[in-house]
Amino acid sequence: MEKRYLFTPGPTPVPPEVLAATAEPMVHHRGADFRVVYERALGRLQDVYRTRGQALLFAASGSGAMDSAVANLTGPGDRVAVVVAGAFGERWVKVCTHYGLDVQRLDYEWGEVPDPAEIGSAVAASGVATVFCTQSETSTGVVSDVQAIKAAVGDARLVVDAVSSLGAVPLETEAWGIDVAVSGSQKALMCPPGLAMAAIADDLWDVLPPSRTFYFDWRATRRAQEAFDSAFTPPVSLIKGLDVALGMILDAGLEAAFERHVRLGRATRAGLKAMGLELFSPDDDSSAVVTAARVPEGIEAPVLLRHLREKHGVTLAPGQGALKPSVFRIGHIGWFDVFDIASALAAVELALTELGADIERGVAVGRAFEAYEQRVAA
Amino acid sequence: MEKRYLFTPGPTPVPPEVLAATAEPMVHHRGADFRVVYERALGRLQDVYRTRGQALLFAASGSGAMDSAVANLTGPGDRVAVVVAGAFGERWVKVCTHYGLDVQRLDYEWGEVPDPAEIGSAVAASGVATVFCTQSETSTGVVSDVQAIKAAVGDARLVVDAVSSLGAVPLETEAWGIDVAVSGSQKALMCPPGLAMAAIADDLWDVLPPSRTFYFDWRATRRAQEAFDSAFTPPVSLIKGLDVALGMILDAGLEAAFERHVRLGRATRAGLKAMGLELFSPDDDSSAVVTAARVPEGIEAPVLLRHLREKHGVTLAPGQGALKPSVFRIGHIGWFDVFDIASALAAVELALTELGADIERGVAVGRAFEAYEQRVAA
Repeated sequence: MEKRYLFTPGPTPVPPEVLAATAEPMVHHRGADFRVVYERALGRLQDVYRTRGQALLFAASGSGAMDSAVANLTGPGDRVAVVVAGAFGERWVKVCTHYGLDVQRLDYEWGEVPDPAEIGSAVAASGVATVFCTQSETSTGVVSDVQAIKAAVGDARLVVDAVSSLGAVPLETEAWGIDVAVSGSQKALMCPPGLAMAAIADDLWDVLPPSRTFYFDWRATRRAQEAFDSAFTPPVSLIKGLDVALGMILDAGLEAAFERHVRLGRATRAGLKAMGLELFSPDDDSSAVVTAARVPEGIEAPVLLRHLREKHGVTLAPGQGALKPSVFRIGHIGWFDVFDIASALAAVELALTELGADIERGVAVGRAFEAYEQRVAA
Repeated sequence: MEKRYLFTPGPTPVPPEVLAATAEPMVHHRGADFRVVYERALGRLQDVYRTRGQALLFAASGSGAMDSAVANLTGPGDRVAVVVAGAFGERWVKVCTHYGLDVQRLDYEWGEVPDPAEIGSAVAASGVATVFCTQSETSTGVVSDVQAIKAAVGDARLVVDAVSSLGAVPLETEAWGIDVAVSGSQKALMCPPGLAMAAIADDLWDVLPPSRTFYFDWRATRRAQEAFDSAFTPPVSLIKGLDVALGMILDAGLEAAFERHVRLGRATRAGLKAMGLELFSPDDDSSAVVTAARVPEGIEAPVLLRHLREKHGVTLAPGQGALKPSVFRIGHIGWFDVFDIASALAAVELALTELGADIERGVAVGRAFEAYEQRVAA
């Protein structure tokens, strides 16, 4: 009988319309019924990416799209730079190292915001041709300024992990000259996990080396998609869900989604601070995707999370890596509204009280609504 | 208002219980609710594979599992043999060639049944260490005797494409000593596409070279699965569906599934022959997965298929490659019963009549039921 509440930064809650689309009777992937959906979903994906370039779709987790970027852009021994400021920056390093690249790490403390000018200087000094970075570092809540990073790295290619940011914060893939932006279905795109995507700038196609993997071969995938076909049997049900979800996002307008995420971030921060908790993620409007906070003295974060899950059916996300004992995270990506934030805050307040923490009670939800009410300046 | 009928060999129809499971509200992949499902699904997958060895699960199309086998078993320049008797044998060649292997083709005509003794002799003569074959060649309807092939190749490893055969025809992965068997969710496992799997014999783990892809790294996947975790965000909704579907299959018993597939194949062949059509797939009980038949003189197969789809909402599968003009295929994999076969046969009969073909009318469905009624000897 106990209800469940999912406030994690991926998988995120999926709207019932999207779930219903994924549960429609199966159709053949080469039939006319599916082709209409597929063509529309691919077009909508370009619209969400804000690009007229190819947006490739793979049956895979988001990390599959990361793999595809390294496997299609590089050859063994290539020198590349990776901006590392959290767990997903480390994932780029792992993929690049796996494929035998010579990796120049541009390290930041977890929670620190990468500095575009510094990145530009380091890339200019080393002369690497390809730079990997993370737009929204889900492990810390930091959102990087990828427009400024692209401007700073000059002629080097910028490959952006937009897994938790696409559809949540602005990403003008084409206008900003982002060379590659990879993403996944289970974050702001409001779908179940299982679809990965990669938007690829037009001018890359002529200079790609042969793909180092068979499955994630960008050229083969592009050839198929241009005929509204797929290289391998596509995940029909997930693509039906994606089509509906992208339609919902675009009908309401991407700008509305961006504004909602900013305001949800404000509400979350205001509520946590009202309880007397210390934020780990930045305390400003850039922090629109996930909010990370420190537990109060004397409470272990894993104990809080287990208590929330087992006693109240509420799932928040743990801190990653060294942050595990001291940090918890509330996602507000995709299909979230202010009532979700109110529930998450109320649950944290209740659980901390039950665990004996000394926090301010009865104010978090009210402060969250106040913070949410302010419009974001255009 | 027009109803739709899906009689293709993948994606195949998905039972409503499975669709409903895929559409449940999203849960976190590291939470207790999902862990129970995941652990049970992984165990059921071993049961369906009939192995106590690891069965790895990937977010991918079936071809992703094929990629994983080549990427984890071989190094550049390795000599391997591939049994080629249709489109999916050709796919093994493509994957192997992509990864720079030296491929010894063991070619059979499309529609011919590969000869285990011949394969054994060829492998002994060349001394290759790894052989790739296809259990059910979906493009032709031929099912190979992989038990005999494994016995014939001696110490060479046998990697079996079981994408359309797992759960449809016997595959005793462990007892037969099959080294690797790859499969996909969207065939006899009665799920939407998007999950790929690979069962790996225990004695392989100590001798695997480093994985050539990051995403499909078997060792990393195994490490995660052993803790009932996953290397990357797993496709939660598809795994929920898989758990339900495998439960349905195992509750009824794998032997019952194998017998049903044999009898559905008999029914399909009896009906097609009663109309006066010529079979392309073998006319015996080995042909339990998909039935391929030739169109009558004067009819183009693509015209028949389009007519069926557009006028009657019925989707059959085309011939692949050079068979496209002359062959069509009826799948009877997974969630099919004899009434589905009756509908498929009635639709073919109606459409051929409407297209002016000279066929025998009014007998196909009756003959199909007669053929279906005979039990299969244990």
